[in-house]
Amino acid sequence: MAIAVTPPRGMRDFLPADKAVRERSLGIIRDSFRAHGFDEIETPVMEDSDRLHAGLGGDNEKLAFAVLKRGLSTADVAAAAEQDDLLSLADLGLRFDLTVPLARFYATHRAALPAVFRSIQIAPVWRAERPQKGRYRQFMQCDIDIIGEAGPLAEIELITATAATLDQLGLEGCSIRINDRRILSALLAYWNVGAELTERALIVIDKLDKIGVDGVASELGTLGIDAPDLATLLTELGSGGWSLGDSAPKWLDTAAFADLTDLRAALPGVDLVFDPTLVRGMGYYTGTIFEISHPDLAYSLGGGGRYDGMIGRFLGTDVPACGFSIGFERIVDLLQADAASAQHAVVLVYEKDADSARLVALKRDLIAGGLRVRLERRTKNLKALLDRAGEAGYGRFAFVSADTQAAVDLDFKPLGA
Amino acid sequence: MAIAVTPPRGMRDFLPADKAVRERSLGIIRDSFRAHGFDEIETPVMEDSDRLHAGLGGDNEKLAFAVLKRGLSTADVAAAAEQDDLLSLADLGLRFDLTVPLARFYATHRAALPAVFRSIQIAPVWRAERPQKGRYRQFMQCDIDIIGEAGPLAEIELITATAATLDQLGLEGCSIRINDRRILSALLAYWNVGAELTERALIVIDKLDKIGVDGVASELGTLGIDAPDLATLLTELGSGGWSLGDSAPKWLDTAAFADLTDLRAALPGVDLVFDPTLVRGMGYYTGTIFEISHPDLAYSLGGGGRYDGMIGRFLGTDVPACGFSIGFERIVDLLQADAASAQHAVVLVYEKDADSARLVALKRDLIAGGLRVRLERRTKNLKALLDRAGEAGYGRFAFVSADTQAAVDLDFKPLGA
Repeated sequence: MAIAVTPPRGMRDFLPADKAVRERSLGIIRDSFRAHGFDEIETPVMEDSDRLHAGLGGDNEKLAFAVLKRGLSTADVAAAAEQDDLLSLADLGLRFDLTVPLARFYATHRAALPAVFRSIQIAPVWRAERPQKGRYRQFMQCDIDIIGEAGPLAEIELITATAATLDQLGLEGCSIRINDRRILSALLAYWNVGAELTERALIVIDKLDKIGVDGVASELGTLGIDAPDLATLLTELGSGGWSLGDSAPKWLDTAAFADLTDLRAALPGVDLVFDPTLVRGMGYYTGTIFEISHPDLAYSLGGGGRYDGMIGRFLGTDVPACGFSIGFERIVDLLQADAASAQHAVVLVYEKDADSARLVALKRDLIAGGLRVRLERRTKNLKALLDRAGEAGYGRFAFVSADTQAAVDLDFKPLGA
Repeated sequence: MAIAVTPPRGMRDFLPADKAVRERSLGIIRDSFRAHGFDEIETPVMEDSDRLHAGLGGDNEKLAFAVLKRGLSTADVAAAAEQDDLLSLADLGLRFDLTVPLARFYATHRAALPAVFRSIQIAPVWRAERPQKGRYRQFMQCDIDIIGEAGPLAEIELITATAATLDQLGLEGCSIRINDRRILSALLAYWNVGAELTERALIVIDKLDKIGVDGVASELGTLGIDAPDLATLLTELGSGGWSLGDSAPKWLDTAAFADLTDLRAALPGVDLVFDPTLVRGMGYYTGTIFEISHPDLAYSLGGGGRYDGMIGRFLGTDVPACGFSIGFERIVDLLQADAASAQHAVVLVYEKDADSARLVALKRDLIAGGLRVRLERRTKNLKALLDRAGEAGYGRFAFVSADTQAAVDLDFKPLGA
């Protein structure tokens, strides 16, 4: 047929083996966040266009998929072209993150929510980016946010819950790099970088991992910032960690640094690493920022920070907020299928003329005993059939013969994965 | 602010209490379907427009939300208006059901799937319908389908899995009405309704519940079908159930009826009701059709049937298929929060000057003991704080004082729901 049968560009299907790992991982994340006192909410995948493009989403706003208005006439479309107002063709868009919907949700339901609201959002988002390896146009985000808590308990609870969740997922050896936007701002101010260049300078510093010290110095130069030793200094400071030596450097925002050391004291079980070169991309962060690192991986496994100015924007009031997002798509690639559950998944191989009622009764009894049960009609290529069942996560199989009257008559054998 | 903060028209937010019931119910459905040997898959929420509008979706195709092409120029839009080709503005659309994506998925991945493929899809769909009570523009569907099984074992497994899932959800007293499209076709043929009118006549008969016997007779009349006693007869037949008396009526497709009685014999634990007036709306059904009824409810809680012509359409080949869909949005309204889990959810009320590190340690120990733990700073209106926690599913609370050194020092009291 002429119709292509691939998924849309940059989007993925998930076959049973992958889907099982994803759902199991999402279940672990959900249960762990809930155990830590967070409450899951859900918003529609679409928001009104004017909310998506209200300036809270930064560069991601440009990547939103727009949804065509229903019932448009040819005259409407002609008018949009004439007035050069293509935005008028769309009234809805797919969310590009979970933070803009959270701000909208909070404005809608504030009266029904506790004074300190701890939210979980586990849901897909969409970005019309150029597809590339590891970057998709539909992907899952797992966010926790604490709204209404101005003090450090928000950071403490977010980092505790996230570290515990990484443990539950079986991801060992993760550390959490931490910094404070105030430290970065003070550093830039010390080097006389004007406020009007702060955001752009931070974007450059954020590339330190990728473009190196010379690259950062060069790009700062094109911004008109003459700081040949800035990047080198940043690197040296980063390697110093929590140890400030005999005295604090002159550039350091000591109040912000003291807050970070307090955080470390309240989180004895977490590998917290001070990294003054950590920037995080989003422009809306106002205080603490953090990122999950793994020693074997060059990329971060998630991050977050404090963004006090944003959640209240639709309300027209300031509301303190802090959030942490796990990079689900990166993490799920590191996780394995649950081998233990395969033992509880069995295949019954039956002959073509087997009695349906007996098969169904056998299956029912095995399920009642806690097993997952799949029926497979015996085929010529039995090995292929069994191999496929093994790949799908089934661990044992048995033949159903004319003599099989009850579940005890079944002789289960292991299935190679 | 000028920006409205409601969700988009016809779409819903879910607050914590509702979201918890939804996720718990979806978890039960997922686990039950998996125990019965079905495998969950996932497809992107969007499909290419030409696939969504390939004729597999019936009237629902008109309800698809269309996604604007990225990078359209004003000239592109003007050209679309000039050529009166508004479809050219959109290249993607949001799925309106899970069956069209399943047909596309099967065509994409057939080589990697077992000969008999039992799929689970638990996912949202979107329809730009006029919003009304109980009908939403975004809603969940829970579908199971068996592809590649032409025999009755497909129907048997689908009905067994669905009935077991309703039990697991705690929905008692459900029955499953069953019919066969061949019985309806034979009946219409017996009354000389031409093939060209079959589909439209079935749509009329489907309204029997709503417009009554006279309404059906009248609407059939406007189609040019003169059958004043047809509707009465259907009602009488329906009340007869499985008992055919001394002999089968002349109109009955006895082969199809024998298949249904065989099905009943293979499903001794299920309340299966023969209903020759059951039609189901979708035009693509080719054999057995079924619907979940509850004695207290006027509407069905789900349904499905055999649709052998459809899944293979993107492959250009016929593939037998049968499916059953649970009406999740209707069922979830009948379910309650999990009272048992509230006992394992506790609130720790702390004073403003409490030590963060000690709070975090207490919380960690309680979580390790299997509890869900929320911290709440004590407020003036303590009752409001506790009431809200009770509504959110927390069952007990304790005060954290300066004397609280460990979890054993906490004195838990019940929280009124």
